Amino acid sequence: MQTYQPPLRDMRFVLHELHGSEALKDLKGCEDVTPDLIDAVLEEAGKLVTEVLAPLNTVGDAEGCKYENGVVRTPTGFKDAYNTYREGGWNGIACDPEWGGQGLPASVTKCIEEMMCSANVAFSLYPGLTHGAYEAMMGHATQELKETYLPKMVEGSWSGTMCLTESHCGTDLGLLRTKAEPQDDGSYKINGSKIFISAGEHDLTENIIHLVLARLPDAPKGVKGISLFLVPKFLPNADGKPGPRNGVSCTGIEHKMGINGSATCQISFDDATGWLVGETNKGMAGMFTMMNSERLSVGTQGLGIGEAAYQSAVAYAKDRVQGRSLAGTKYPDKPADPIIVHPDVRRSLMTMRAYNEGCRALGGWVARHLDLMERSNDPEERQNAEDFTALMTPIVKSLFTDLGFANASTGVQVYGGHGYIREHGVEQYVRDARIAMIYEGTNGIQALDLVGRKLPAHTGRYLRSFFHPVLAYIDAKMDDENLGPLVGPLGKAFGALQLATGHIAEKGLKDPEEAGAAATDYLRLFGLVALGYMWVRMAEVAFEKKGNANGEAAFYENKIATARFFIDRLLPEVAGLWGAIKSGKSSMMALPDDAF
Amino acid sequence: MQTYQPPLRDMRFVLHELHGSEALKDLKGCEDVTPDLIDAVLEEAGKLVTEVLAPLNTVGDAEGCKYENGVVRTPTGFKDAYNTYREGGWNGIACDPEWGGQGLPASVTKCIEEMMCSANVAFSLYPGLTHGAYEAMMGHATQELKETYLPKMVEGSWSGTMCLTESHCGTDLGLLRTKAEPQDDGSYKINGSKIFISAGEHDLTENIIHLVLARLPDAPKGVKGISLFLVPKFLPNADGKPGPRNGVSCTGIEHKMGINGSATCQISFDDATGWLVGETNKGMAGMFTMMNSERLSVGTQGLGIGEAAYQSAVAYAKDRVQGRSLAGTKYPDKPADPIIVHPDVRRSLMTMRAYNEGCRALGGWVARHLDLMERSNDPEERQNAEDFTALMTPIVKSLFTDLGFANASTGVQVYGGHGYIREHGVEQYVRDARIAMIYEGTNGIQALDLVGRKLPAHTGRYLRSFFHPVLAYIDAKMDDENLGPLVGPLGKAFGALQLATGHIAEKGLKDPEEAGAAATDYLRLFGLVALGYMWVRMAEVAFEKKGNANGEAAFYENKIATARFFIDRLLPEVAGLWGAIKSGKSSMMALPDDAF
Repeated sequence: MQTYQPPLRDMRFVLHELHGSEALKDLKGCEDVTPDLIDAVLEEAGKLVTEVLAPLNTVGDAEGCKYENGVVRTPTGFKDAYNTYREGGWNGIACDPEWGGQGLPASVTKCIEEMMCSANVAFSLYPGLTHGAYEAMMGHATQELKETYLPKMVEGSWSGTMCLTESHCGTDLGLLRTKAEPQDDGSYKINGSKIFISAGEHDLTENIIHLVLARLPDAPKGVKGISLFLVPKFLPNADGKPGPRNGVSCTGIEHKMGINGSATCQISFDDATGWLVGETNKGMAGMFTMMNSERLSVGTQGLGIGEAAYQSAVAYAKDRVQGRSLAGTKYPDKPADPIIVHPDVRRSLMTMRAYNEGCRALGGWVARHLDLMERSNDPEERQNAEDFTALMTPIVKSLFTDLGFANASTGVQVYGGHGYIREHGVEQYVRDARIAMIYEGTNGIQALDLVGRKLPAHTGRYLRSFFHPVLAYIDAKMDDENLGPLVGPLGKAFGALQLATGHIAEKGLKDPEEAGAAATDYLRLFGLVALGYMWVRMAEVAFEKKGNANGEAAFYENKIATARFFIDRLLPEVAGLWGAIKSGKSSMMALPDDAF
Repeated sequence: MQTYQPPLRDMRFVLHELHGSEALKDLKGCEDVTPDLIDAVLEEAGKLVTEVLAPLNTVGDAEGCKYENGVVRTPTGFKDAYNTYREGGWNGIACDPEWGGQGLPASVTKCIEEMMCSANVAFSLYPGLTHGAYEAMMGHATQELKETYLPKMVEGSWSGTMCLTESHCGTDLGLLRTKAEPQDDGSYKINGSKIFISAGEHDLTENIIHLVLARLPDAPKGVKGISLFLVPKFLPNADGKPGPRNGVSCTGIEHKMGINGSATCQISFDDATGWLVGETNKGMAGMFTMMNSERLSVGTQGLGIGEAAYQSAVAYAKDRVQGRSLAGTKYPDKPADPIIVHPDVRRSLMTMRAYNEGCRALGGWVARHLDLMERSNDPEERQNAEDFTALMTPIVKSLFTDLGFANASTGVQVYGGHGYIREHGVEQYVRDARIAMIYEGTNGIQALDLVGRKLPAHTGRYLRSFFHPVLAYIDAKMDDENLGPLVGPLGKAFGALQLATGHIAEKGLKDPEEAGAAATDYLRLFGLVALGYMWVRMAEVAFEKKGNANGEAAFYENKIATARFFIDRLLPEVAGLWGAIKSGKSSMMALPDDAF
């Protein structure tokens, strides 16, 4: 059965003990964000997700969304849950107080996102898309558009979408055909068809605000001729309420492998009225504002599902009795031992745990940089944080979603045959997790972004925002009595990352296909080293605290044991990745296309 | 869209060129099995699967089986397809001519199994289970039972099942509760409930023969008190036709993640009449006869689905245009290049291809040993073949199914967002492939079988059946001009396998949990080395033949390039696995159970 309790203790560890949340209050707009406030918010969010969202997860999967004559109905209970969510003010937690939001820092809101994804990832997409649209509008929309739309979107009575993909183009948006014709009143007429529009049509909000990529009549070919438009489902009246229906219609929804509670829509624009967001032909900039925010959120989906899969697997592994421990009977009063005693089940659970807690720590580190980037008073700190965020975004997106899918699959494996049966609920995690490796740029595209854009940017400046602190840390802790045994392997793995980086810098400069051939393995290697660094840092905190832990010594001991597991069992993958990378592109690209 | 053509050329390569099929005719009962005959059989099988089975794959997935009042209806078209299959004589191809079979060797029939799994794995389970029951009966049933049942089961008018699992026990069959009470006439009354019974009830055959594990009243506890019984759905009349209904009923079917066309049944035995198969309390022996045969077949499911996923991904990668090659435009006449030009797509396709072709070669090698084991005139050769088959069975089962699932997931990734949509058909491969890692003994159990039973057996004798030929080959080819660059890394990987084996032998002897902690990584390491050996052997054949290839030079060149890819890109994983193994059990087993 799906089992989930928000990992509040671990979130507090990451926020307060690892990343020092008391420093958040020095940031602009965070003056009141104390550890106590954070704890209270997370606790309330935990209640919301367990009481309201989690019970609808299997319902949404089984029912899916229903399409009829342009109308989309979300699964039973989604509308009530959305109202509870909205009325509780949760939709605006990450938004600017100027527009009615609560302005909480990403360090906090990312934890809430994780909980929502654990409880019901399909539901989380509706507010998630609104937030993506909000970000793009904050960055690029005129004051007038902001005033008309943002208050409604922040309170959640209106929702948002990102209309990028067309049937013939996803990754290569340069091919897109949707057209925008300027009108005398400064608006545009939008015509075209989009697919894969999450939350494109539904019954949760009174209006839906589409952000649409389209071409102006005189636009240059390719991505340099794309503009971004705001196209509401209902045109607002003078009083700000939804008025006449715009030329936007939903022509169908997709039947998918998973996230069935999320409406994935085909949207048709037929002389729809829209307004330009940002400059003409600079639509990709606005799109990337949405996209970068969404990419981190998609990474969080991987973590969220991975956590739920882990907890569900733990519950089953403690309950299911089968066989006896190889070390001799452990539970003589039971007909057999619970399967958690078996090393291979233990390996599975520890792997999921080490990935989840590692990703939570790494995600928290990136979130802190998001906060610094947006709120620090120190321009140098802001710049460094921006560099770091740019570097880590593709890693968080790909690594977290790959691991989320792997964890979901491992969860099924712990359940054995029962995991394959729908009513047990854990195979849903596999199906729900699978999309996160694809949307908002496939994981292969993320890897290309890392090696092709992020590594070479400003002659490696982004890279230094990660390499410098990690290298300094390794040097400082190499001979530490407690940490040394963990730092040694981390240093070796970091050495492989340096070698791989040099390989790509050298070979990729001459031949971009060499960088492309290394990209996916390199991203994974980078991600594992980043997780390894987080694990050693977490172990450091745990070593410091466990002696004086007010009854929580076990928590810190477990943290140290899990750090050891990560270093012992998961970090060694790095050796194989570097082995693969250094072989170069030759055998990968050897076959002619028609040999396939 | 699901795309599948039987890989006949590659199967001929494996059968004839790699494993020398001309030697098959020296085996008992294979006097007529010439390469020409094999080719003709495979060609016909290819027609059957593409024309009859493949078109029903998505139908079976969408419709599933229907349960009503104890009756199970298979999806539209399954019954006609089964009749075509049966009337074509395909059900008996691997069976003894004494019972109406065609007695073809496993080397050939495993290829047909692979094709069936590629085309429609859910359908393939119906005859697959019959064959498992056939094997158990061949090994353990009385002559009278054989005479009554085998002819019908071989011709396929009656089907078979394996009734092992109960709701509270799967892996640990010692817990099972189904009872068998001896009757005066030598039969038994069977009472109990079984779950997860593939093909337990359906509308394809006029009778269903259940092989049921149950306990006699005076049986010892645990697995030593389990006996095997034959329990038909309809009791045969004196004329051999189905007579009165036996006390066997289907009380429900499961709703699963995949293989929806396969009926997974809950079966209730209520005073059902059955007959003993084999000796009392030795039911596990009969069960393992079925199980070992089924385990190899489940491995073949992984390969079959992996091949279909590969072909579907290739078709899409050639058709879908998106972006331009990093090396400059390749298809200037198109609006963008087909995505097959991109290194990361190439990496995905090459990975799938290298795994599939490697598994086909390794599966063929094991199949040859199955044939030697059963049909060689040389007792020493038979013994060695039995050792080898025992050793490789858990590897084939786990490795092939892990790779099959990975390949299916990679196939979805190549499709991008379209892969997540049900109508495109490729997400079905992921859902269908997932079960193969679980049933017939989870992959974790396979790994335990490898390290706990197969390694120590006869002080390592099984192991020598693999180690000796591989080591001799590496020694012989190390300095070969063509092969040397491939043999070097293979030798290094083999060295890691030797070290890991030594580690398990040494540590596992003192502490079985050490062997358990190493098991899964060790099985994977072993499997990769076995695939690496196959790849070098295939490259050797290709180097020999490419100079004089009658227009097939490209085939051999591609084989060599794929071998290089495997050695360059996939074999390096071994380094990480050995790194993980040598860390031992300590961090894996450190947490107390209640820390999870």
